[in-house]
Amino acid sequence: MINELVKKIKEKDAPIVVGLDPMLSYIPEYILEVSFAAYGRNLEGAAEAIWQYNKGIIDCTYDLVPAVKPQIAMYEQFGVEGLRAFKRTCNYAKQKGLVIIGDVKRGDIGSTSEAYAIGHVGKVVLGKHAFSPFTEDFVTVNPYLGSDGVKPFIKVCKEEKKGMFILVKTSNPSSGEFQDQLVDGRPLYEIVADKVAQWGQDHMGDEYSYVGAVVGATYPKMGETLRKIMPNNYILVPGYGAQGGQGKDLGVFFNKDGLGAIVNSSRGIICAYKKAPYAERFGPEDYAEASRQAVLDMKEDLKQAYIKD
Amino acid sequence: MINELVKKIKEKDAPIVVGLDPMLSYIPEYILEVSFAAYGRNLEGAAEAIWQYNKGIIDCTYDLVPAVKPQIAMYEQFGVEGLRAFKRTCNYAKQKGLVIIGDVKRGDIGSTSEAYAIGHVGKVVLGKHAFSPFTEDFVTVNPYLGSDGVKPFIKVCKEEKKGMFILVKTSNPSSGEFQDQLVDGRPLYEIVADKVAQWGQDHMGDEYSYVGAVVGATYPKMGETLRKIMPNNYILVPGYGAQGGQGKDLGVFFNKDGLGAIVNSSRGIICAYKKAPYAERFGPEDYAEASRQAVLDMKEDLKQAYIKD
Repeated sequence: MINELVKKIKEKDAPIVVGLDPMLSYIPEYILEVSFAAYGRNLEGAAEAIWQYNKGIIDCTYDLVPAVKPQIAMYEQFGVEGLRAFKRTCNYAKQKGLVIIGDVKRGDIGSTSEAYAIGHVGKVVLGKHAFSPFTEDFVTVNPYLGSDGVKPFIKVCKEEKKGMFILVKTSNPSSGEFQDQLVDGRPLYEIVADKVAQWGQDHMGDEYSYVGAVVGATYPKMGETLRKIMPNNYILVPGYGAQGGQGKDLGVFFNKDGLGAIVNSSRGIICAYKKAPYAERFGPEDYAEASRQAVLDMKEDLKQAYIKD
Repeated sequence: MINELVKKIKEKDAPIVVGLDPMLSYIPEYILEVSFAAYGRNLEGAAEAIWQYNKGIIDCTYDLVPAVKPQIAMYEQFGVEGLRAFKRTCNYAKQKGLVIIGDVKRGDIGSTSEAYAIGHVGKVVLGKHAFSPFTEDFVTVNPYLGSDGVKPFIKVCKEEKKGMFILVKTSNPSSGEFQDQLVDGRPLYEIVADKVAQWGQDHMGDEYSYVGAVVGATYPKMGETLRKIMPNNYILVPGYGAQGGQGKDLGVFFNKDGLGAIVNSSRGIICAYKKAPYAERFGPEDYAEASRQAVLDMKEDLKQAYIKD
């Protein structure tokens, strides 16, 4: 699946993933009203609104980008009904030819981590049939529990030719509280990165590993070092746009081949219609077209980062 | 809710939480057959079997213990249907008067962490009604992302009088890979524990904080130090039984008041009927009675740990 992701990034000339992190406050009133009218002003109605909203964005952007990254928390927030909307979103995006990065940040130990891996990127075999509980191609994984937590994901990903991105240095302001602590003069995130590079060797694609890393756009200096520690690991870069990252600062995340990183934007794309410069041109009923324009603009902006010569 | 948990621990004289981590291989054949016959040999049938299995264990142990800890991975493994069984299990255990510790190990940043908190221990307000997507009383939280990841949980827990246990030192063999790294001569898990003690001050119950910690039974020496760093934080102790922890070694996790820790056993209780010494006395059809006997035995064993004089 990493080969597939790299191929699609090249084909679409866009190292971009659209973060599908819907909040009810992003969703235009007319979608909410139709959904609540059909299913009630309850969790089911809210989940329907999220799904309809996502569908609009996927329909307007799928030809431009290689992948989407639904953030499961925004669905889990609405319980079982929300998680049904998560699955429906993944399935629909897949039908449209997109790679699905499930931003689930799971991590546990042994059979428990394996259960998460099976649930999201694996299969449950019952009798003669195999079932895919959820249907992502990649998941994000939290490394705090060590190899015991990560290896079961690698095992399942190998069987299914799927992949993962392991949290190394996250984009948020307080990520340094633990991640930057110095161990023999080196920050913890570099020690995690050493491990990611090593785990990555266990599950290589053609050029890049199926095991990638998450490094926030908000920390480009650290990104530069981490790019070198993990030359064969794809880096998923959150924190572009709303969190402050800009294309001109992101060159450090890419390798000389112009590959090696995929940049996520969530709010900046899916909620573009509410913000300048899009709010002037697009009303709520054009939210999906606004998201398309935001992708086109991001594509241009990112060329400063990955086109190297 | 921490006051409620402490009260129930005292009433039942049992600092024990039953880990509801069902695997299909634990479930007696007759339950599987009935469930598959009713719903098909599919994810729905598997989820039904898990729910029926859990119900039997809850019915046979609820009068002995203060709490249950369903491990969500074991349900998420079966997708939306599995998560419905998770919710059903939580609701049923709550009806039986048990405190619910959702072992979800979630952690993200800002509004995303808040969405997880709302989903598991909070409420979604839609119009005039509030909905509880899932219905735990406590959740486990992964601290790798720092305060940005934890504080949204504290905010929601304060509103709802609910609580959390933050991963400090996990019970697995490779937990030391990152958690034991020395920072200025102190292991990272102690630095996390400093923070847990500090976060705990923001949300105190009568004697203990609503913010607790997870420290594995498999590391009693570290537990001794961590007990002192976090005197007002309840410690959830996994790793008893199947993972190697024993009552006589667990005294260090308790305070002088005989409180301050709650010990989890999962396989050792819910799968007791398959193992010595229970397998000789209990067949598959008595799996729930075997779990009751395992709780009674654990209760006796733990007295060595918390009765101090």
